[in-house]
Amino acid sequence: MKKKINIGIIGSGFMGRAHSFAWMNVNRFFDTEFEPVLKAVSFGSRSGLAQEFAEKQGWEEVVPSWEDLVAREDIDVVDICAPTWLHHDIFVAAAENGKHIFCEKPAAITYAEAKGMADAADKAGIVHYLNHNYRRVPAVALAKKLIEEGRLGTIYHWRGAYLQDWVMDADFPLTWHFQKEKAGGGPHYDLGSHMIDLARYLAGEITAVTGMNKTFIGDRPLPGEHAGTFSSGGGEAAAQRAPVTVDDACFFVADFENGALGSFDATRFASGRKNWNDFEVYGSKGGLKFNFENMNDLLFLDLDGPSAEHGYRRISATTGEHPYAGAWWGPGHVLGYENAFFHAAADFLNAVSSGTGITPDLHDGAACIRVIEAVIKSCSEKRLVEIEEIT
Amino acid sequence: MKKKINIGIIGSGFMGRAHSFAWMNVNRFFDTEFEPVLKAVSFGSRSGLAQEFAEKQGWEEVVPSWEDLVAREDIDVVDICAPTWLHHDIFVAAAENGKHIFCEKPAAITYAEAKGMADAADKAGIVHYLNHNYRRVPAVALAKKLIEEGRLGTIYHWRGAYLQDWVMDADFPLTWHFQKEKAGGGPHYDLGSHMIDLARYLAGEITAVTGMNKTFIGDRPLPGEHAGTFSSGGGEAAAQRAPVTVDDACFFVADFENGALGSFDATRFASGRKNWNDFEVYGSKGGLKFNFENMNDLLFLDLDGPSAEHGYRRISATTGEHPYAGAWWGPGHVLGYENAFFHAAADFLNAVSSGTGITPDLHDGAACIRVIEAVIKSCSEKRLVEIEEIT
Amino acid sequence: MKKKINIGIIGSGFMGRAHSFAWMNVNRFFDTEFEPVLKAVSFGSRSGLAQEFAEKQGWEEVVPSWEDLVAREDIDVVDICAPTWLHHDIFVAAAENGKHIFCEKPAAITYAEAKGMADAADKAGIVHYLNHNYRRVPAVALAKKLIEEGRLGTIYHWRGAYLQDWVMDADFPLTWHFQKEKAGGGPHYDLGSHMIDLARYLAGEITAVTGMNKTFIGDRPLPGEHAGTFSSGGGEAAAQRAPVTVDDACFFVADFENGALGSFDATRFASGRKNWNDFEVYGSKGGLKFNFENMNDLLFLDLDGPSAEHGYRRISATTGEHPYAGAWWGPGHVLGYENAFFHAAADFLNAVSSGTGITPDLHDGAACIRVIEAVIKSCSEKRLVEIEEIT
Amino acid sequence: MKKKINIGIIGSGFMGRAHSFAWMNVNRFFDTEFEPVLKAVSFGSRSGLAQEFAEKQGWEEVVPSWEDLVAREDIDVVDICAPTWLHHDIFVAAAENGKHIFCEKPAAITYAEAKGMADAADKAGIVHYLNHNYRRVPAVALAKKLIEEGRLGTIYHWRGAYLQDWVMDADFPLTWHFQKEKAGGGPHYDLGSHMIDLARYLAGEITAVTGMNKTFIGDRPLPGEHAGTFSSGGGEAAAQRAPVTVDDACFFVADFENGALGSFDATRFASGRKNWNDFEVYGSKGGLKFNFENMNDLLFLDLDGPSAEHGYRRISATTGEHPYAGAWWGPGHVLGYENAFFHAAADFLNAVSSGTGITPDLHDGAACIRVIEAVIKSCSEKRLVEIEEIT
Repeated sequence: MKKKINIGIIGSGFMGRAHSFAWMNVNRFFDTEFEPVLKAVSFGSRSGLAQEFAEKQGWEEVVPSWEDLVAREDIDVVDICAPTWLHHDIFVAAAENGKHIFCEKPAAITYAEAKGMADAADKAGIVHYLNHNYRRVPAVALAKKLIEEGRLGTIYHWRGAYLQDWVMDADFPLTWHFQKEKAGGGPHYDLGSHMIDLARYLAGEITAVTGMNKTFIGDRPLPGEHAGTFSSGGGEAAAQRAPVTVDDACFFVADFENGALGSFDATRFASGRKNWNDFEVYGSKGGLKFNFENMNDLLFLDLDGPSAEHGYRRISATTGEHPYAGAWWGPGHVLGYENAFFHAAADFLNAVSSGTGITPDLHDGAACIRVIEAVIKSCSEKRLVEIEEIT
Repeated sequence: MKKKINIGIIGSGFMGRAHSFAWMNVNRFFDTEFEPVLKAVSFGSRSGLAQEFAEKQGWEEVVPSWEDLVAREDIDVVDICAPTWLHHDIFVAAAENGKHIFCEKPAAITYAEAKGMADAADKAGIVHYLNHNYRRVPAVALAKKLIEEGRLGTIYHWRGAYLQDWVMDADFPLTWHFQKEKAGGGPHYDLGSHMIDLARYLAGEITAVTGMNKTFIGDRPLPGEHAGTFSSGGGEAAAQRAPVTVDDACFFVADFENGALGSFDATRFASGRKNWNDFEVYGSKGGLKFNFENMNDLLFLDLDGPSAEHGYRRISATTGEHPYAGAWWGPGHVLGYENAFFHAAADFLNAVSSGTGITPDLHDGAACIRVIEAVIKSCSEKRLVEIEEIT
Repeated sequence: MKKKINIGIIGSGFMGRAHSFAWMNVNRFFDTEFEPVLKAVSFGSRSGLAQEFAEKQGWEEVVPSWEDLVAREDIDVVDICAPTWLHHDIFVAAAENGKHIFCEKPAAITYAEAKGMADAADKAGIVHYLNHNYRRVPAVALAKKLIEEGRLGTIYHWRGAYLQDWVMDADFPLTWHFQKEKAGGGPHYDLGSHMIDLARYLAGEITAVTGMNKTFIGDRPLPGEHAGTFSSGGGEAAAQRAPVTVDDACFFVADFENGALGSFDATRFASGRKNWNDFEVYGSKGGLKFNFENMNDLLFLDLDGPSAEHGYRRISATTGEHPYAGAWWGPGHVLGYENAFFHAAADFLNAVSSGTGITPDLHDGAACIRVIEAVIKSCSEKRLVEIEEIT
Repeated sequence: MKKKINIGIIGSGFMGRAHSFAWMNVNRFFDTEFEPVLKAVSFGSRSGLAQEFAEKQGWEEVVPSWEDLVAREDIDVVDICAPTWLHHDIFVAAAENGKHIFCEKPAAITYAEAKGMADAADKAGIVHYLNHNYRRVPAVALAKKLIEEGRLGTIYHWRGAYLQDWVMDADFPLTWHFQKEKAGGGPHYDLGSHMIDLARYLAGEITAVTGMNKTFIGDRPLPGEHAGTFSSGGGEAAAQRAPVTVDDACFFVADFENGALGSFDATRFASGRKNWNDFEVYGSKGGLKFNFENMNDLLFLDLDGPSAEHGYRRISATTGEHPYAGAWWGPGHVLGYENAFFHAAADFLNAVSSGTGITPDLHDGAACIRVIEAVIKSCSEKRLVEIEEIT
């Protein structure tokens, strides 16, 4: 008989839906010690939406104020799916209430905030997890395993590109994603944070950056009146336009602690690329390539063996021998976007069980935001910036 | 408030798990009129396993005998996930009890059986569905849409290959899949039925076939004592070996009613291919290619426009404009194997609501088995066989 | 100082051009003992064209009658690029005159003819080569090497497809390619012969076949008056149409001497496929895949090593360690269609030097036509045909 | 009857061989007004090699000193294949002698040199061409055509990567490619110049850059005694090592005049990448992708038409409708590295005939070196550098 663990979620958009699905079903596939109870959901506005979300996604109760939710005694885990600008305050309050925290990425708007969150977590002694979900795609977890086994040797290069195209229409409305104070930045935050997290995970710490960013569409129509705080719009756009205060694209070059040289291209203006989270790692003994749009495959080069036979091999990371994959459907029965959330939920619950940590956590999140800030500084000051300049 | 609909499932293996997941969660993503209740599960042996399955997958009750289950008044839908040789009897009993039926493929061992099932369904006036799940992969549904719109013109060729490699080890145990009386055949039934269903769906009716089949490994070790009737083994294999009575591979060529010429290669001995369900359709105005191992993409050739620009384009069938995809995660947030089961569950529930049919049903299943039997006859009599020879 | 070797070529179309280029330049890349002299060119009609060809391609002289050419004392090598129906007579005459012969494929219209050619060659003791050029693409030669080293183990499957689309327009003129008496057949001869040759080379001898063929466009306009015997047309088509007497597509399944099961799909009606010469070989220890449209790559699966790392690797067969490739431009400096003709020319000249044979020769050509005839018999008699039925 | 045009070539390495092949055979495929005569070859050392090259590649005469060669009255065209550091002096001398010039890339070591070459060419009124051969790959020429027709709309991004791995072995000898004074730089010159040329050709002028570079292997063994001035080594390496004075990798980000943001990654340390010249162009109306390792394909996205059908299509740029391709072998009969040299030779001869210019010329070469210098300045001064800072 599993122990119940009560979850309170803040946010009811895209991510709230993905998390709910995972909490409710994780034990079908992974044998955790806990039975998650979808106790309560909270968000700042429009209780109608909250109610609808709760019913459809299986949450027992709506709590209008997140401050109330994080303080409730019957909540064991706070799951933060709110927009980035709210992460810090929710996280710190939840930590101070001793809740374990499952938090969406990016960690926060600033390095200072993110560090504050990590400190609060340490002080509270809670289990905290930052949901850079791509780490738990089986092919990516396999990449990590190969690198840790030394199969790539000395790493010379990281090449990351995270390309989307969903905002190329100049009349796409100015949701919170286009407001610096709410999102921190554009693709540099949303997509860049994923790339930086993966680079830190797979290639090592970044020490210096230099880059440029762009805003191609300077203003956008305000969202219609039915758009909520946490949602990305809906209803028609208003006639009135307002300035976009974030980047539409940010490209940078990075130096790594281990001597590797890397590139990072994040944009929402790469026509035809939908969720093109693509990386390559080149080392002295091998190489790796991954692209999320075909997320079940890892391309792996092994420089062992006769050189006439070298080549990138396509590993379908879907068998019982690959990380996480054995819990699912079997060889070649490919997984999708949602599955990595189940993996995160299972690992998180196991971390709560064991009292050990789980990565990435808010320390990772802070390190990531530090790089992000360094890049912004580089773009604005038109010079190479050492990461340690950001304090 | 949704109406409850009570499901009784027979079978608790791989498919039982996939169906359970879909029934339990379909309304998170699709707005059906019904709330499926996972009422009861049944299978023939080992009640311990049944109990474990029920608990993990959320079924309220275990009913040891399927005969009891299909007769229960509180069951609205019978979901058949048992091995192929049991399909006919379960289906007919369920139909006679007026249950709607959601049945795994292939329909049955013989065309006569399958026809009997379709007749029973017609007589009972039930909603019946045969779960050739690949029809409801968004990229495949998009292929259908393009063909129906005439975008391929006259169809000249179907080229299907369904390649796997999971039984290449000569010591893989002799589970029911290798016994003709239980499975009907080898990959010709398991994989070939999917290909034939897709060919009928996308390219038209088959009128004649000629082919050959092979059994590469003539005998295999008997499964260990813990292997159940419905499971695919487990525990160690016994030392004793027994003959394989099905094909390991079956390749055939087919003539279509519309004049197209097709090929179908089904095998479990294609090293490195895991779930390589691959088809190409060539027409006078365009072409299509799909491969399940990268199931989110459809390759589409449109012969409209300047010929210097012709080429197969990769459509990521993951946006709100593609069949089913809008219910999920968004552009490039790729789907996996499991999602098509949700699509089938939603369409099935909607068919029950509306009283209209759903395809493929048992008539499709019978047509498919008829082709399968014709191919077997061709292999054994070493000649071309007209489909109408099978009665 | 290289010895001169005088070439006489019969045919001045596409193939005449490719051969001329190779003869003239082979020693830039390969160190043969001979300096080929482009002595004389012959074809049956329109001396104007012959003269133009000779000037542009560097042939010293035009000899109107091929009978004269093959009898000339100063000719050492006869290069046959004429249409298929003329191969037999030219070949036998050349052999009887003691010329070494470099002959385009397919060998002949019938097995009897092809056997006669091989017998004539044996009797004359000449070096004879049948130009199935794809064997000498570096990636294919590498495939052969891997198979000969046992890297694939027992071969279970050959899957070949040779797909083109150049005649899909119903008004494409009725050139000799559509006349059974001149071409032997349609894609079954032109493309199928390549596939069968590659299958025999890589997977072994074929013992039985069963298949179907189709002619989608039953008649075509006669070519304009300026079309020559050996050319594929030109000028406008006449208004008059005449029946097509060859297949537009031919698909068959084959049994191999070593127990493998194979499929062969040849068509000129695969929209969007230009020169899609594609094969897969599946064995107990590995697999291979090749496609001519990306001819520099060989995909190779090696089942040695941890199974979690298995996958088809893309080998760019362009380095000094790959067959033929070292003579050219260097790693990743990819080769094209023409290069394999240089490889054939070099190997042929070396065979003349050493007096050893070269493959494929006319014996291979006859074996190939034998399979082709068996398939035709199978299509027409609607039954499986054993190869040994063809005598 | 074609007019003879006498070519004098300086350099007898890899490039000398490729150019010789093209000069000798260009008229087989392209109908130029001239018959190139391979008159004389020159290089600085080891006349034995020169003699061997002349014989094998078909040059009439060896002229030991390039100064003599460029001054000879019977030379019409000077073809410069010498190492980069010699380009300037040879070019200027040839121009002053009124020779037309076909020059290998990169133009020169410095922007000042390259500008001097362009000025000398203008003053002399000669036809001058800089052989950035990739512009004349049919797929790339097709990309240009599509962009010029406005099919991409506003260009937002260029993403270039030119990845190789041939020097990853720390004992690969220190040839001239590793010496700043002879090569200018490492991959930043060799590969980066190609990328910059393609970016200028396809995406527009670059206005500012910021980047980093790396030298992973600080010293290398000196080449053996038999290595010549112009060759890349040969014989065994000496025991003695000397410092590498060029980059092993250089990554930079660029701003374009038209507002686009671009990235450029050049490296010789990308394990498994052989000649991975890869670019993507993203615009408001479409996108393009090319990779030289599969050089016959262009991936093209057209945002016209229903968005549910959008996707990158693979165009096989091998038909008569594609630039240059019609002169060769036919649809799907793919071209290789060498063919673009024939295209350049034909275009160059036609430019001499017509007296019009040909691009890229030395003005393009100078613009390219200017960007290269700006990047070097950026790497060394750790800041963004405007192109106009380089004078």
